[in-house]
Amino acid sequence: MTETLTLSIDAMGGDNAPNMVVEGIETSLSHLAEVKFLLFGDEVKLAPLLENHPWAAAVTEIRHTVEAITNDQKVSSALRGGRNSSMRLAIDAVGAGEAAGVISAGNTGALMAMAKFVLKTLPGIDRPAIAAYYPTQRGESVMLDLGANVDCDADNLVQFAVMGEVFARNVLGLENPSIGILNVGAENLKGNEAVKKASAMLQETSLPIKFHGFIEGDDISAGIVNVVVTDGFTGNIALKTSEGTAKMFGEFLKQALSESLISKFGALLASNALKKFKMKVDPRRYNGAMFLGLNGICIKSHGGTDALGFANAIHVAEELITHSFNDRIKEDYALLSGNPPTTEKAAGSE
Amino acid sequence: MTETLTLSIDAMGGDNAPNMVVEGIETSLSHLAEVKFLLFGDEVKLAPLLENHPWAAAVTEIRHTVEAITNDQKVSSALRGGRNSSMRLAIDAVGAGEAAGVISAGNTGALMAMAKFVLKTLPGIDRPAIAAYYPTQRGESVMLDLGANVDCDADNLVQFAVMGEVFARNVLGLENPSIGILNVGAENLKGNEAVKKASAMLQETSLPIKFHGFIEGDDISAGIVNVVVTDGFTGNIALKTSEGTAKMFGEFLKQALSESLISKFGALLASNALKKFKMKVDPRRYNGAMFLGLNGICIKSHGGTDALGFANAIHVAEELITHSFNDRIKEDYALLSGNPPTTEKAAGSE
Repeated sequence: MTETLTLSIDAMGGDNAPNMVVEGIETSLSHLAEVKFLLFGDEVKLAPLLENHPWAAAVTEIRHTVEAITNDQKVSSALRGGRNSSMRLAIDAVGAGEAAGVISAGNTGALMAMAKFVLKTLPGIDRPAIAAYYPTQRGESVMLDLGANVDCDADNLVQFAVMGEVFARNVLGLENPSIGILNVGAENLKGNEAVKKASAMLQETSLPIKFHGFIEGDDISAGIVNVVVTDGFTGNIALKTSEGTAKMFGEFLKQALSESLISKFGALLASNALKKFKMKVDPRRYNGAMFLGLNGICIKSHGGTDALGFANAIHVAEELITHSFNDRIKEDYALLSGNPPTTEKAAGSE
Repeated sequence: MTETLTLSIDAMGGDNAPNMVVEGIETSLSHLAEVKFLLFGDEVKLAPLLENHPWAAAVTEIRHTVEAITNDQKVSSALRGGRNSSMRLAIDAVGAGEAAGVISAGNTGALMAMAKFVLKTLPGIDRPAIAAYYPTQRGESVMLDLGANVDCDADNLVQFAVMGEVFARNVLGLENPSIGILNVGAENLKGNEAVKKASAMLQETSLPIKFHGFIEGDDISAGIVNVVVTDGFTGNIALKTSEGTAKMFGEFLKQALSESLISKFGALLASNALKKFKMKVDPRRYNGAMFLGLNGICIKSHGGTDALGFANAIHVAEELITHSFNDRIKEDYALLSGNPPTTEKAAGSE
């Protein structure tokens, strides 16, 4: 019954590409069945790697190109000069319908710009957003925007809220997900103009959205809401600050536990527990940022990740595709906001 | 040789006030010598508490008032109607020269507004900022603004940079502290207009400031710079997100270590190490946000803290006073930016 899923991969993006990419494909196969990869990059480098990864080789087709987008390449240069880059060709494969989704660990700005140019945005969406899973004390939340849009107005934030809601309902499988806007306080009076206006719009709307209101930074990991909405400047900094804190915690813990013989022995006895703990907060498990609002599935892997992290990014793409996320968002977005509440919809429901 | 240090305390601010405040005073005495407290609040509540804390009672003078600012009170109402509140009278004592600094765990917005009204800003500072110590892998950094100014322009950010530099040099005792502006990427092209302009100003200035450039969220706890400059919206959210992550980590670790008998035994053996680790990341150790740029020392304690946290906020006030922070900032600010680099200073140095 299962159809073969075709995914398009930029083999040359990321600090440890292409080795990490090929290993990531191999790792992903422990979870994926009926999958095929189109691997865009330098055949001279890719062919020997695939020889060493026979599982991956069996489901992968190399699409040769020697050009690649660099990490410090400007967006304008990538758009103009990058037409034969591994990143661009991998996106083109989705645009042409050859692949159902694309994964790259390369230059985020270039990936977003080229994906927007090739795939276009979904109806009703002005600007795509970067979304990612976020571990919380009550399971996983989703947070957006994480850096696609440095300046956001209230309309952008409301669109992010709608996309996040659709994602949480269809992909996370939550019946009535709650949405919060990230702010410096929970009271209505606090914050900048964009968040105040967006909050008022979501409070007054007749859309069937469970709007919690404002949340503060520490509410994110407390899991107060299922969807955290924020502008790309704040979201990017909040996410990375949190990653940094997690890393520092891990370092401090490691240092403390290796200070004496007895603490080392204690850590040895608790090693299974510590391993579980480590796994629970392993950033590779949350790797794979989703570009929501595009007419095609596009996943950005962390540039510095390893095979396990890249495999997870592949898994995120597979999840969005399996749940027909873009079809759902199109349907639901039309239903939710295609008819603005102030006109037909409001009239119809009253 | 030591003069008596007089500190003014709002006894009625904070979730666990006034008990926590009186206990905090008692706790602070293990570190402080030659100190006197003016304690503003309801005598009926405070007198019995002091009876139970004889050390604190010996150095504390109650200044009776029944009025208090509530946590949800609006800034405008606090300014107009709060003239006899414990918070306002505690600030007034600094304004009148009776006390060298004030500490409150109450409503942040009201405290900032009243402190600004009573104490005024230092010469050259348009807007005061909230600053706090931040634990990093390389020791402590200082970060500002953490919420006083939701919207900041480039001039505000540059003033924060100058204040942070003076703080790091005089209070942290660093010879040549490095300054970074928090952004979504390290490249000059990234970010919003305010950070791009502020960065250009700090790069081009002839001021003797060691400007590192942009830093990202995860660079904060990596300790890449000594002073992290950001607007109050982003800074508040980054700080609280980090606090939330730390709390979640602690919870996950506790859960993992209590899952089996053997892990419990391991944790017991490693309990000294775990205690050290816990102490290292204890948020109470970083309690006490400094309102920098005011003509008087004003410290905001976290509202939900306990006696240990409040004692730390008292310690922060004492540190700023002992290092004559406001005199240094006045001297250094005049030296650093009294003459803007575009006019006299630039002309003189070229």
